[in-house]
Amino acid sequence: MRIAVDAMGGDHAPREIIRGVAVGIEKIPDIEIVLYGLEDRIKAELAHAELDNPRVTIEHCSQIIEMSESPVEALRHKRDSSIARIAVAAARREVDAIISAGNTGAFAAACQLSRIGNLPGVARPGIAATLPTFHGPVVVCDVGANVTPKARHLYEYAHMSVCYARTILGIKAPRVGMVSIGQEASKGNTLVREARSLIEQDERLNFVGNVEGRDIFASDCDVFVCDGFVGNVILKLTEGLAEGIFKTLRKEISEEGPNLIEQFEPVIERIWQKHDYTEYGGAPLLGVNTVVIICHGRSDHRAIANAIRVAAEQVRLDLNGAISDHLSKPAEGGA
Amino acid sequence: MRIAVDAMGGDHAPREIIRGVAVGIEKIPDIEIVLYGLEDRIKAELAHAELDNPRVTIEHCSQIIEMSESPVEALRHKRDSSIARIAVAAARREVDAIISAGNTGAFAAACQLSRIGNLPGVARPGIAATLPTFHGPVVVCDVGANVTPKARHLYEYAHMSVCYARTILGIKAPRVGMVSIGQEASKGNTLVREARSLIEQDERLNFVGNVEGRDIFASDCDVFVCDGFVGNVILKLTEGLAEGIFKTLRKEISEEGPNLIEQFEPVIERIWQKHDYTEYGGAPLLGVNTVVIICHGRSDHRAIANAIRVAAEQVRLDLNGAISDHLSKPAEGGA
Repeated sequence: MRIAVDAMGGDHAPREIIRGVAVGIEKIPDIEIVLYGLEDRIKAELAHAELDNPRVTIEHCSQIIEMSESPVEALRHKRDSSIARIAVAAARREVDAIISAGNTGAFAAACQLSRIGNLPGVARPGIAATLPTFHGPVVVCDVGANVTPKARHLYEYAHMSVCYARTILGIKAPRVGMVSIGQEASKGNTLVREARSLIEQDERLNFVGNVEGRDIFASDCDVFVCDGFVGNVILKLTEGLAEGIFKTLRKEISEEGPNLIEQFEPVIERIWQKHDYTEYGGAPLLGVNTVVIICHGRSDHRAIANAIRVAAEQVRLDLNGAISDHLSKPAEGGA
Repeated sequence: MRIAVDAMGGDHAPREIIRGVAVGIEKIPDIEIVLYGLEDRIKAELAHAELDNPRVTIEHCSQIIEMSESPVEALRHKRDSSIARIAVAAARREVDAIISAGNTGAFAAACQLSRIGNLPGVARPGIAATLPTFHGPVVVCDVGANVTPKARHLYEYAHMSVCYARTILGIKAPRVGMVSIGQEASKGNTLVREARSLIEQDERLNFVGNVEGRDIFASDCDVFVCDGFVGNVILKLTEGLAEGIFKTLRKEISEEGPNLIEQFEPVIERIWQKHDYTEYGGAPLLGVNTVVIICHGRSDHRAIANAIRVAAEQVRLDLNGAISDHLSKPAEGGA
């Protein structure tokens, strides 16, 4: 199994990427990793990480797509960037999985513009983010691949996320909810009503109905289906609010007394560990005909190591086979 | 000044509503309150709250719209419900402001179906929610009045929320952000791009650009403009996540030791107080030609008392005059 890693993508690239690779290659014996990026920089970081393993190789790329660049423009002008090159490698079946913590839009666009293609039965890929909640992980799809989806696309997100939740997160019969602004079927907008009707007709989906923003952190649903605009707002709001609350807590507790903050630190530490987003190793772009893991720009070595682990699991457990099984066969109900 | 209050709306009606009225009428000397609802129930609660004030009167309504009813259906069949009746009272200019913690959809629809009308220059009203953040309150508009707005409507939300933030929240030059999924002007969907262009051309608006979900709890923006679907998800997600985090914290701290939780309680209490949503007294439906306050279904007497205070302020400070001034005059830039 060969996994391509963009060595130049992310706020802490290439150092944290290479450190993550060092951990990943050590833990998973049956993989090879191909690092895409500036050869000199990569070599320097390999030396720094004391990583010298024949299962890790380098593919030199002369260009870098910056985090702030316009995706389509950047891809047009930077054919030799690490992001463009890993997508081409996947399209040529030279690798089984591709990972980047770089420009998300460019990475998703590269996957769709290259000749990787979609899985049978999939019209539009979607990004599935795993959010740690107090009741365990939940999946939100789509979080930004497609801001103007059609009902059929949301129906695909439901199936793909269920396959992901079952295969990778180990949730036996994932419950699916449609993100809306009220629980009644009549609530929401046209897209939500049309997609809901497709989803609830398919008996293979364990559909619980419409769910609201607050239900994401309740325990009644495992998979949340929404358009990429709404999903992206959910993802970033959750990050921002959780960070903000803990920052405020630390401040208020410090004001209460320096003693208290010392006692409190291990509690915060434990909560962070239980709800550590890095554990899920980034968000898969589901529906493309390879394994794609989109990592957070802030990924550290732990996030990268986990992304490698999750990518290898997706290949080994044939997540994509499960997805095309679901989506290339019609439902009993006829959706 | 006469304020109509729906005595039957909300999870804790009529008791908490009447208790809230008792506090409100005591604190604000120049208002009269008209309670709409079942006369017998209201009289019993007035007695229970020991409220006997000639400035509080009752208008008997024989019907109640339940929280779960379909808004338009309910309004059609329940013309003598408290929600329908307060909207009619506003349309007839019998009252200056109307308040309900009942079925939000029905209340918003009643305001639009009745002959209250919109303010000059306003095509579509929007609900503006005030969220307490660690840097002070921010306004998100719309949070559910209109799930398929046009660009012009979002432009109106920006102006109306700015007037609200300035007049009622005391923010001098409110900074306006367009909720999107990336800071670049090209990001988002067609609606966002069109609305952004209208907003940024109007020099009266202090526009900071596109903002993301995580920016709502940063300190760079005071007014967040979005469609009613996205805004509703933001509002409910924030509620659910904040509650969830504090629940988890209490649990983890209790496990750390019973001593610690005792020390910690006052800190939580202080944080809740600083970020108490009830302080803002519900969300105004901005743009209609009266003062409308939509309260949370869970409103307790404090929330209702604050809603009365905020409604009186909106009348006294002529928020609606400011809004029509903004929106019935063209911008210098020509938006």
